[in-house]
Amino acid sequence: MAHLTASVEYSLHCLLWLMDAGDKPLSSRDLAELQGISPSFVAKLFPKLEKAGIVKANEGVRGGYVLARPPGEITFLQVIDAIEGFKPLFECQEIRHRIALFGDTPPAWATDGLCSIHTVMIKAEDAMRAQLAAHTLADVAVAVVRKAPTDFKVEIQEWMDGRMKGRRPGRRLKTHTASS
Amino acid sequence: MAHLTASVEYSLHCLLWLMDAGDKPLSSRDLAELQGISPSFVAKLFPKLEKAGIVKANEGVRGGYVLARPPGEITFLQVIDAIEGFKPLFECQEIRHRIALFGDTPPAWATDGLCSIHTVMIKAEDAMRAQLAAHTLADVAVAVVRKAPTDFKVEIQEWMDGRMKGRRPGRRLKTHTASS
Repeated sequence: MAHLTASVEYSLHCLLWLMDAGDKPLSSRDLAELQGISPSFVAKLFPKLEKAGIVKANEGVRGGYVLARPPGEITFLQVIDAIEGFKPLFECQEIRHRIALFGDTPPAWATDGLCSIHTVMIKAEDAMRAQLAAHTLADVAVAVVRKAPTDFKVEIQEWMDGRMKGRRPGRRLKTHTASS
Repeated sequence: MAHLTASVEYSLHCLLWLMDAGDKPLSSRDLAELQGISPSFVAKLFPKLEKAGIVKANEGVRGGYVLARPPGEITFLQVIDAIEGFKPLFECQEIRHRIALFGDTPPAWATDGLCSIHTVMIKAEDAMRAQLAAHTLADVAVAVVRKAPTDFKVEIQEWMDGRMKGRRPGRRLKTHTASS
Protein backbone atom coordinates (compact mmCIF):
# COMPACT_ATOMS: atom_id res chain seq x y z
CA MET A 1 0.00 0.00 0.00
CA ALA A 2 1.19 3.52 -0.75
CA HIS A 3 1.41 6.44 1.69
CA LEU A 4 -1.17 8.40 -0.32
CA THR A 5 -4.59 6.93 -1.02
CA ALA A 6 -6.46 6.52 -4.29
CA SER A 7 -8.62 9.47 -3.16
CA VAL A 8 -5.71 11.78 -3.95
CA GLU A 9 -5.24 10.26 -7.40
CA TYR A 10 -8.95 10.48 -8.25
CA SER A 11 -9.12 14.06 -7.00
CA LEU A 12 -6.19 15.18 -9.12
CA HIS A 13 -7.62 13.53 -12.23
CA CYS A 14 -11.04 15.10 -11.61
CA LEU A 15 -9.45 18.52 -11.13
CA LEU A 16 -7.59 18.17 -14.44
CA TRP A 17 -10.92 17.50 -16.16
CA LEU A 18 -12.49 20.52 -14.45
CA MET A 19 -9.58 22.54 -15.75
CA ASP A 20 -10.37 21.37 -19.29
CA ALA A 21 -14.03 22.16 -18.73
CA GLY A 22 -13.24 25.77 -17.83
CA ASP A 23 -16.45 27.56 -16.92
CA LYS A 24 -18.68 24.58 -17.76
CA PRO A 25 -19.63 23.03 -14.42
CA LEU A 26 -19.36 19.24 -14.21
CA SER A 27 -21.07 17.17 -11.53
CA SER A 28 -19.18 14.52 -9.62
CA ARG A 29 -21.29 11.98 -11.54
CA ASP A 30 -20.16 13.46 -14.89
CA LEU A 31 -16.54 13.20 -13.74
CA ALA A 32 -16.97 9.63 -12.51
CA GLU A 33 -18.64 8.46 -15.71
CA LEU A 34 -16.09 10.18 -17.91
CA GLN A 35 -13.30 8.33 -16.13
CA GLY A 36 -15.01 4.98 -15.50
CA ILE A 37 -14.69 5.27 -11.72
CA SER A 38 -17.18 4.95 -8.83
CA PRO A 39 -19.63 7.90 -8.63
CA SER A 40 -20.15 7.46 -4.88
CA PHE A 41 -16.39 7.49 -4.31
CA VAL A 42 -15.95 10.67 -6.35
CA ALA A 43 -18.93 12.34 -4.65
CA LYS A 44 -17.18 12.05 -1.28
CA LEU A 45 -14.09 13.91 -2.51
CA PHE A 46 -15.76 17.12 -3.61
CA PRO A 47 -16.98 18.50 -0.26
CA LYS A 48 -13.34 18.32 0.91
CA LEU A 49 -12.06 20.08 -2.21
CA GLU A 50 -14.77 22.71 -1.85
CA LYS A 51 -13.97 23.29 1.83
CA ALA A 52 -10.32 23.86 0.91
CA GLY A 53 -11.32 26.48 -1.67
CA ILE A 54 -10.06 24.38 -4.59
CA VAL A 55 -13.43 23.97 -6.33
CA LYS A 56 -16.70 25.83 -6.02
CA ALA A 57 -20.16 24.39 -6.42
CA ASN A 58 -22.46 25.90 -8.99
CA GLU A 59 -25.94 25.36 -7.60
CA GLY A 60 -27.85 26.72 -10.57
CA VAL A 61 -29.65 24.98 -13.43
CA ARG A 62 -26.25 23.89 -14.70
CA GLY A 63 -25.22 22.44 -11.36
CA GLY A 64 -21.77 21.03 -10.85
CA TYR A 65 -18.28 22.10 -9.90
CA VAL A 66 -15.75 24.47 -11.41
CA LEU A 67 -12.22 25.27 -10.22
CA ALA A 68 -12.28 28.02 -7.59
CA ARG A 69 -8.80 29.30 -8.49
CA PRO A 70 -6.64 29.43 -11.63
CA PRO A 71 -5.04 25.97 -12.16
CA GLY A 72 -1.58 27.54 -11.84
CA GLU A 73 -2.48 28.33 -8.23
CA ILE A 74 -3.68 24.85 -7.25
CA THR A 75 -0.73 22.78 -6.04
CA PHE A 76 -0.45 19.03 -5.48
CA LEU A 77 0.22 19.74 -1.82
CA GLN A 78 -3.03 21.69 -1.41
CA VAL A 79 -5.02 18.84 -2.96
CA ILE A 80 -3.31 16.19 -0.81
CA ASP A 81 -3.83 18.15 2.40
CA ALA A 82 -7.46 18.87 1.43
CA ILE A 83 -8.20 15.19 0.88
CA GLU A 84 -6.12 13.49 3.55
CA GLY A 85 -5.65 16.29 6.08
CA PHE A 86 -2.11 17.09 7.15
CA LYS A 87 -0.47 13.76 7.91
CA PRO A 88 3.07 14.06 9.25
CA LEU A 89 5.84 11.77 8.02
CA PHE A 90 6.77 10.97 11.60
CA GLU A 91 5.25 11.39 15.04
CA CYS A 92 7.82 11.56 17.83
CA GLN A 93 6.77 9.57 20.90
CA GLU A 94 9.53 11.29 22.89
CA ILE A 95 10.85 7.97 24.15
CA ARG A 96 14.07 9.74 25.13
CA HIS A 97 12.14 10.87 28.25
CA ARG A 98 11.79 7.29 29.46
CA ILE A 99 15.46 6.25 29.73
CA ALA A 100 15.76 3.95 32.76
CA LEU A 101 18.67 5.90 34.29
CA PHE A 102 16.61 9.09 34.44
CA GLY A 103 13.99 7.74 36.84
CA ASP A 104 10.90 9.95 37.02
CA THR A 105 12.63 13.22 36.16
CA PRO A 106 14.51 13.24 32.87
CA PRO A 107 17.13 16.04 32.83
CA ALA A 108 16.60 19.10 30.65
CA TRP A 109 19.64 18.38 28.45
CA ALA A 110 17.96 15.14 27.33
CA THR A 111 14.52 16.54 26.59
CA ASP A 112 14.97 20.16 25.49
CA GLY A 113 14.44 20.94 21.82
CA LEU A 114 13.52 18.55 19.06
CA CYS A 115 14.73 14.96 19.22
CA SER A 116 17.57 14.61 16.68
CA ILE A 117 15.75 11.77 14.94
CA HIS A 118 12.64 13.92 14.57
CA THR A 119 14.79 16.73 13.12
CA VAL A 120 15.96 14.49 10.27
CA MET A 121 12.40 13.33 9.59
CA ILE A 122 11.20 16.94 9.38
CA LYS A 123 13.93 17.73 6.83
CA ALA A 124 12.77 14.78 4.71
CA GLU A 125 9.12 15.77 5.05
CA ASP A 126 9.91 19.38 4.13
CA ALA A 127 11.78 18.24 1.01
CA MET A 128 8.79 16.15 -0.09
CA ARG A 129 6.25 18.87 0.63
CA ALA A 130 8.36 21.47 -1.17
CA GLN A 131 8.22 19.35 -4.33
CA LEU A 132 4.48 18.84 -3.97
CA ALA A 133 4.00 22.58 -3.46
CA ALA A 134 6.13 23.37 -6.51
CA HIS A 135 3.84 21.54 -8.95
CA THR A 136 0.41 22.80 -9.93
CA LEU A 137 -2.48 21.45 -11.97
CA ALA A 138 -1.39 23.76 -14.78
CA ASP A 139 2.10 22.18 -14.94
CA VAL A 140 0.66 18.71 -15.31
CA ALA A 141 -1.98 19.79 -17.78
CA VAL A 142 0.71 21.10 -20.11
CA ALA A 143 2.22 17.60 -20.29
CA VAL A 144 -1.15 15.97 -20.88
CA VAL A 145 -2.32 18.45 -23.50
CA ARG A 146 0.93 18.10 -25.43
CA LYS A 147 0.16 14.43 -25.91
CA ALA A 148 -3.54 14.63 -26.81
CA PRO A 149 -4.49 14.99 -30.50
CA THR A 150 -6.73 17.91 -31.48
CA ASP A 151 -9.69 15.70 -32.37
CA PHE A 152 -9.68 14.24 -28.85
CA LYS A 153 -9.83 17.72 -27.34
CA VAL A 154 -12.81 18.52 -29.56
CA GLU A 155 -14.53 15.26 -28.65
CA ILE A 156 -14.07 15.90 -24.92
CA GLN A 157 -15.56 19.38 -25.18
CA GLU A 158 -18.51 17.93 -27.12
CA TRP A 159 -18.98 15.24 -24.46
CA MET A 160 -18.99 17.90 -21.72
CA ASP A 161 -21.44 20.06 -23.66
CA GLY A 162 -23.61 17.00 -24.18
CA ARG A 163 -23.67 16.25 -20.46
CA MET A 164 -24.82 19.76 -19.69
CA LYS A 165 -27.50 19.79 -22.38
CA GLY A 166 -28.70 16.38 -21.22
CA ARG A 167 -29.60 17.71 -17.80
CA ARG A 168 -33.27 18.69 -17.61
CA PRO A 169 -34.07 21.08 -14.72
CA GLY A 170 -35.88 18.51 -12.54
CA ARG A 171 -33.40 15.72 -13.17
CA ARG A 172 -30.45 18.08 -13.04
CA LEU A 173 -31.12 19.23 -9.50
CA LYS A 174 -31.69 15.67 -8.33
CA THR A 175 -28.49 14.42 -9.95
CA HIS A 176 -26.51 17.23 -8.43
CA THR A 177 -27.92 16.61 -4.96
CA ALA A 178 -27.40 12.88 -5.15
CA SER A 179 -23.93 12.83 -6.61
CA SER A 180 -22.19 15.99 -5.58
CA MET B 1 -1.42 9.01 12.40
CA ALA B 2 1.93 9.52 10.74
CA HIS B 3 3.20 7.93 7.53
CA LEU B 4 5.99 6.15 9.42
CA THR B 5 5.17 3.88 12.36
CA ALA B 6 6.57 3.85 15.89
CA SER B 7 8.60 0.78 14.83
CA VAL B 8 10.89 3.09 12.87
CA GLU B 9 11.33 5.42 15.85
CA TYR B 10 12.06 2.57 18.25
CA SER B 11 14.51 1.00 15.81
CA LEU B 12 16.47 4.22 15.36
CA HIS B 13 16.68 4.79 19.11
CA CYS B 14 17.82 1.19 19.69
CA LEU B 15 20.47 1.53 16.99
CA LEU B 16 21.80 4.70 18.60
CA TRP B 17 22.20 2.79 21.88
CA LEU B 18 23.97 -0.05 20.06
CA MET B 19 26.28 2.56 18.60
CA ASP B 20 27.11 3.75 22.12
CA ALA B 21 27.61 0.17 23.24
CA GLY B 22 30.22 -0.40 20.54
CA ASP B 23 31.40 -4.01 20.72
CA LYS B 24 29.32 -4.83 23.81
CA PRO B 25 26.32 -6.80 22.55
CA LEU B 26 22.95 -5.76 23.97
CA SER B 27 19.87 -7.95 23.82
CA SER B 28 16.55 -6.54 22.66
CA ARG B 29 15.42 -6.90 26.28
CA ASP B 30 18.36 -4.75 27.47
CA LEU B 31 17.44 -2.11 24.92
CA ALA B 32 13.75 -2.19 25.84
CA GLU B 33 14.44 -1.90 29.57
CA LEU B 34 16.97 0.88 29.10
CA GLN B 35 14.37 2.92 27.21
CA GLY B 36 11.23 1.96 29.14
CA ILE B 37 9.54 0.45 26.08
CA SER B 38 7.87 -2.91 25.39
CA PRO B 39 10.38 -5.81 25.17
CA SER B 40 8.10 -7.86 22.89
CA PHE B 41 7.73 -4.90 20.54
CA VAL B 42 11.48 -4.35 20.36
CA ALA B 43 12.15 -8.09 19.89
CA LYS B 44 10.12 -8.03 16.66
CA LEU B 45 12.24 -5.27 15.14
CA PHE B 46 15.62 -6.96 15.34
CA PRO B 47 15.12 -9.85 12.90
CA LYS B 48 14.26 -7.22 10.27
CA LEU B 49 17.32 -5.11 11.09
CA GLU B 50 19.48 -8.24 11.03
CA LYS B 51 18.08 -9.36 7.67
CA ALA B 52 18.92 -5.94 6.21
CA GLY B 53 22.51 -6.25 7.44
CA ILE B 54 22.17 -3.35 9.87
CA VAL B 55 22.81 -5.36 13.06
CA LYS B 56 24.34 -8.76 13.65
CA ALA B 57 23.43 -11.22 16.37
CA ASN B 58 26.13 -12.37 18.72
CA GLU B 59 25.07 -15.86 19.73
CA GLY B 60 27.84 -16.48 22.24
CA VAL B 61 27.91 -16.28 26.03
CA ARG B 62 27.48 -12.53 25.74
CA GLY B 63 24.48 -12.84 23.44
CA GLY B 64 22.87 -9.76 21.93
CA TYR B 65 23.18 -7.47 18.97
CA VAL B 66 25.92 -5.17 17.70
CA LEU B 67 25.88 -2.87 14.69
CA ALA B 68 26.91 -4.76 11.55
CA ARG B 69 28.37 -1.69 9.86
CA PRO B 70 30.00 1.57 10.97
CA PRO B 71 27.26 4.01 12.12
CA GLY B 72 28.33 6.47 9.40
CA GLU B 73 27.21 3.85 6.87
CA ILE B 74 23.75 3.22 8.34
CA THR B 75 21.26 5.70 6.89
CA PHE B 76 17.74 6.58 8.03
CA LEU B 77 16.47 5.33 4.69
CA GLN B 78 18.03 1.88 5.18
CA VAL B 79 16.43 1.56 8.61
CA ILE B 80 13.00 2.68 7.37
CA ASP B 81 13.06 0.31 4.39
CA ALA B 82 14.29 -2.54 6.63
CA ILE B 83 11.44 -2.05 9.08
CA GLU B 84 8.54 -1.06 6.83
CA GLY B 85 9.63 -2.46 3.48
CA PHE B 86 9.65 -0.09 0.53
CA LYS B 87 6.35 1.74 0.64
CA PRO B 88 5.81 4.10 -2.29
CA LEU B 89 4.39 7.59 -1.75
CA PHE B 90 1.84 6.95 -4.48
CA GLU B 91 0.49 3.99 -6.41
CA CYS B 92 -0.87 4.88 -9.83
CA GLN B 93 -4.13 3.08 -10.64
CA GLU B 94 -3.75 4.14 -14.27
CA ILE B 95 -7.29 5.50 -14.36
CA ARG B 96 -6.38 7.38 -17.53
CA HIS B 97 -6.94 4.03 -19.33
CA ARG B 98 -10.61 4.06 -18.43
CA ILE B 99 -11.75 7.33 -20.03
CA ALA B 100 -15.28 6.77 -21.35
CA LEU B 101 -14.50 8.11 -24.84
CA PHE B 102 -11.77 5.53 -25.35
CA GLY B 103 -14.08 2.51 -25.14
CA ASP B 104 -12.18 -0.75 -24.71
CA THR B 105 -9.00 0.34 -26.44
CA PRO B 106 -7.33 3.43 -25.01
CA PRO B 107 -4.99 5.02 -27.57
CA ALA B 108 -1.24 4.82 -27.10
CA TRP B 109 -0.82 8.60 -26.72
CA ALA B 110 -2.99 8.45 -23.58
CA THR B 111 -1.30 5.50 -21.91
CA ASP B 112 2.35 5.51 -22.97
CA GLY B 113 4.90 6.52 -20.38
CA LEU B 114 4.32 7.56 -16.80
CA CYS B 115 1.11 9.37 -15.91
CA SER B 116 2.04 13.05 -15.34
CA ILE B 117 0.53 12.95 -11.86
CA HIS B 118 2.67 9.94 -10.99
CA THR B 119 5.76 11.77 -12.29
CA VAL B 120 5.26 14.60 -9.79
CA MET B 121 4.72 12.12 -6.95
CA ILE B 122 7.95 10.33 -7.83
CA LYS B 123 9.86 13.65 -7.71
CA ALA B 124 8.45 14.32 -4.24
CA GLU B 125 9.24 10.80 -3.07
CA ASP B 126 12.79 11.03 -4.44
CA ALA B 127 13.35 14.33 -2.60
CA MET B 128 12.20 12.75 0.67
CA ARG B 129 14.27 9.59 0.22
CA ALA B 130 17.35 11.61 -0.73
CA GLN B 131 17.15 13.43 2.61
CA LEU B 132 16.65 10.17 4.50
CA ALA B 133 19.61 8.63 2.67
CA ALA B 134 21.78 11.66 3.46
CA HIS B 135 21.53 11.23 7.23
CA THR B 136 23.23 8.45 9.14
CA LEU B 137 23.20 7.21 12.72
CA ALA B 138 26.59 8.87 13.16
CA ASP B 139 25.20 12.30 12.21
CA VAL B 140 22.44 12.06 14.79
CA ALA B 141 24.73 10.67 17.46
CA VAL B 142 26.96 13.73 17.18
CA ALA B 143 24.00 15.94 18.11
CA VAL B 144 23.01 13.70 21.02
CA VAL B 145 26.53 13.31 22.40
CA ARG B 146 27.09 17.07 22.31
CA LYS B 147 24.17 17.48 24.71
CA ALA B 148 24.95 14.66 27.18
CA PRO B 149 27.18 15.44 30.18
CA THR B 150 30.25 13.26 30.74
CA ASP B 151 28.89 11.63 33.90
CA PHE B 152 25.84 10.40 31.99
CA LYS B 153 28.07 8.77 29.37
CA VAL B 154 29.98 7.02 32.16
CA GLU B 155 26.75 5.89 33.85
CA ILE B 156 25.41 4.45 30.60
CA GLN B 157 28.58 2.47 29.98
CA GLU B 158 28.40 1.16 33.55
CA TRP B 159 24.76 0.19 33.07
CA MET B 160 25.63 -1.69 29.87
CA ASP B 161 28.57 -3.44 31.56
CA GLY B 162 26.27 -4.35 34.44
CA ARG B 163 23.73 -5.91 32.08
CA MET B 164 26.40 -8.07 30.52
CA LYS B 165 27.88 -9.15 33.86
CA GLY B 166 24.39 -9.91 35.16
CA ARG B 167 23.86 -12.57 32.51
CA ARG B 168 24.77 -16.00 33.78
CA PRO B 169 25.49 -18.53 31.00
CA GLY B 170 22.28 -20.57 31.49
CA ARG B 171 20.04 -17.56 31.93
CA ARG B 172 21.88 -15.59 29.29
CA LEU B 173 21.10 -18.01 26.50
CA LYS B 174 17.45 -18.20 27.55
CA THR B 175 17.07 -14.41 27.72
CA HIS B 176 18.67 -14.02 24.33
CA THR B 177 16.42 -16.64 22.76
CA ALA B 178 13.28 -15.22 24.32
CA SER B 179 13.90 -11.57 23.69
CA SER B 180 16.06 -11.29 20.63
